Amino acid sequence: MEKIEDKNQQQEEEQVVNPWEVSAKEGGKIDYDKLIDKFGCQRLDQSFVDRVQRLTSRPPHVFLRRGVFFAHRDFNDILDAYERGEKFYLYTGRGPSSEALHLGHLIPFMFTKYLQDAFKVPLVIQLTDDEKCMWKNLSVEESQRLARENAKDIIACGFDISKTFIFSDFDYVGGAFYKNMVKVAKCVTYNKVVGIFGFTGEDHIGKVSFPPVQAVPSFPSSFPHLFSGKDNLRCLIPCAIDQDPYFRMTRDVAPRIGYHKPALIESLFFPALQGETGKMSASDPNSAIYVTDSVKDIKHKVNKHAFTGGQESIEKHRQYGANLEVDIPIKYLNFFLEDDAELEHIKKEYGAGRMLTGEVKKRLTEVLTQLVERHRRARAAVTDEMVDAFMAVRPLPSMFD
Amino acid sequence: MEKIEDKNQQQEEEQVVNPWEVSAKEGGKIDYDKLIDKFGCQRLDQSFVDRVQRLTSRPPHVFLRRGVFFAHRDFNDILDAYERGEKFYLYTGRGPSSEALHLGHLIPFMFTKYLQDAFKVPLVIQLTDDEKCMWKNLSVEESQRLARENAKDIIACGFDISKTFIFSDFDYVGGAFYKNMVKVAKCVTYNKVVGIFGFTGEDHIGKVSFPPVQAVPSFPSSFPHLFSGKDNLRCLIPCAIDQDPYFRMTRDVAPRIGYHKPALIESLFFPALQGETGKMSASDPNSAIYVTDSVKDIKHKVNKHAFTGGQESIEKHRQYGANLEVDIPIKYLNFFLEDDAELEHIKKEYGAGRMLTGEVKKRLTEVLTQLVERHRRARAAVTDEMVDAFMAVRPLPSMFD
Repeated sequence: MEKIEDKNQQQEEEQVVNPWEVSAKEGGKIDYDKLIDKFGCQRLDQSFVDRVQRLTSRPPHVFLRRGVFFAHRDFNDILDAYERGEKFYLYTGRGPSSEALHLGHLIPFMFTKYLQDAFKVPLVIQLTDDEKCMWKNLSVEESQRLARENAKDIIACGFDISKTFIFSDFDYVGGAFYKNMVKVAKCVTYNKVVGIFGFTGEDHIGKVSFPPVQAVPSFPSSFPHLFSGKDNLRCLIPCAIDQDPYFRMTRDVAPRIGYHKPALIESLFFPALQGETGKMSASDPNSAIYVTDSVKDIKHKVNKHAFTGGQESIEKHRQYGANLEVDIPIKYLNFFLEDDAELEHIKKEYGAGRMLTGEVKKRLTEVLTQLVERHRRARAAVTDEMVDAFMAVRPLPSMFD
Repeated sequence: MEKIEDKNQQQEEEQVVNPWEVSAKEGGKIDYDKLIDKFGCQRLDQSFVDRVQRLTSRPPHVFLRRGVFFAHRDFNDILDAYERGEKFYLYTGRGPSSEALHLGHLIPFMFTKYLQDAFKVPLVIQLTDDEKCMWKNLSVEESQRLARENAKDIIACGFDISKTFIFSDFDYVGGAFYKNMVKVAKCVTYNKVVGIFGFTGEDHIGKVSFPPVQAVPSFPSSFPHLFSGKDNLRCLIPCAIDQDPYFRMTRDVAPRIGYHKPALIESLFFPALQGETGKMSASDPNSAIYVTDSVKDIKHKVNKHAFTGGQESIEKHRQYGANLEVDIPIKYLNFFLEDDAELEHIKKEYGAGRMLTGEVKKRLTEVLTQLVERHRRARAAVTDEMVDAFMAVRPLPSMFD
């Protein structure tokens, strides 16, 4: 009897990945192969990396060449079209639920900036203040305030104002955007969203109403001030893979309402300092490095909270070397240390026990401090007028230049 | 066994009244007392009629004094506030699913015009083109076209442009209106809308998303260009009683998001020509008189299709008189023949068998022809510019004068 119960429990403890929850199987880490199978997306293999390099004539971004963006849907169609001389547009977004972003939040934006620069294409960024108002029970005003604060962090990532439109749902929903929401909603049954998102009857109808809001920036006609007469423009969405359910739904609906399916390029989750069992949690400040953290905070968090694969004594470490598979400093360096040769060197030396955990942590602290300091300086330079300018509903005449 | 089945079947054939279906019990007519009980609204008794007359210093509208508007929710609060010198605003609407309106469609608008004139208050009229796009599977463009066509019929009812804002959801949803939609949606569970509206899992999520759209015109903050700084303004909704479920939901939510509950004044259904078993059906052209019907059409429909309570032979009619309870010409005259004395005379003579069905039908044809001709002339005078003017998002500086 007990064994059967255990087995049932185990089955219930499968990994959960959806836009609101990311958790690995008890004690394990996220199984990305399984996720790709379950979601039905494709691995982004080396041939894509090579092709992007060739098409854009620039080195592939560190997130691309190290497999941070590891899965896709129809990215090949985007590249085929681009090779034929057709352009596309980028769409990404953020749910503004907290004041300060952590490093995991920056990843899609850093990568999107690279894509914008490399392909020279326009970008729309959705701030889902409506979603956060509904899911986090924030007031409308607080959600809007957070959206503007987050917009500053996003702008600080260096987007080109002549190619970028940032909008909040509370500001922008209406008109052509709302018409597309209705078109999408007509094509999706309640049972379908329950299957995709796991809503229950006790969830409020705002949740049931929201998926079309995140779906429709995938369609150029939702932005008449940008893409009027360009209904055939393709859309590429860089995002973390937990957002895949929204776009699975969107891709299912798109051909039925006369639009292209959006393509996706999807990232791993950025691991928590405590170890790679999911993505970081906004509710535990010690699980993540925030862009507002001081040098001292960063040093403290890395030294005190980063889970390492180093051995418990120097002697053992020298003997066995570090377990790089579970080592968070190495994983973080893999995201943010741009120098491939240095990274390889550290991994080799650390793995062989010739480099100590303290040394790796020191190097990570330097890298993160540099990143955070650079972000802080960039963000401090973002004025309210710049936010207004990025969020103005306006044409972008040189968006494809 | 058979008897039990019969009983079950009977129970299933109870009257159904919701925004999409109105049907009486098999062979019967709508039981309005039961409806009031079920919905939990109140009877509008003579004391209200007298009070309206006293407060507005004008004779009560025929629809009020003859009980066409027969039920209410908190209408007394509106009148109390009005008596204290506070104003309110009116909200009514239409789902634009057909080109031509029938007489039943005109009833809330004719009554709302009277209320606007009598109380000198502003009015918002919602055209739910989004709803019809979703429920009737019309294209966005066709729904919008019908909304504008219907707006012409509505304007033809004589509304005061200095006090009236007409809007279509596809045009107007967004901004403050969308924020209120989100606030409402957060307070209503899926189970709740299933209980109120009877949605199933196979219904599309557009249906689940719609109730907040019809709810929020009840709140003045949904119209910042009209009611900015007047968040405490009360709202009175004249409508047919099948719309009650939307506003039951709205009234439930209102205090939780800091707004007044809207008040309601609710009408009977206008009966079909074939008899009083429900409201008229847009899909059967012979069930209703349309505002586009010619004199010949009206004469033909009344003579050929109106169900009467007259006896089968003149001899029997002279002997027994007409059954006024089921007689459609009498019911129609009750709505549209304004002269109380003449109506009483006809009912008395017809009921006693001294007046024949043909004579009553002739008088009804005259009354309806006059009504339809007047409407047709008024509608022909409505230009596209006037529609634009009524639908312009603008302040109404003399809306309370």
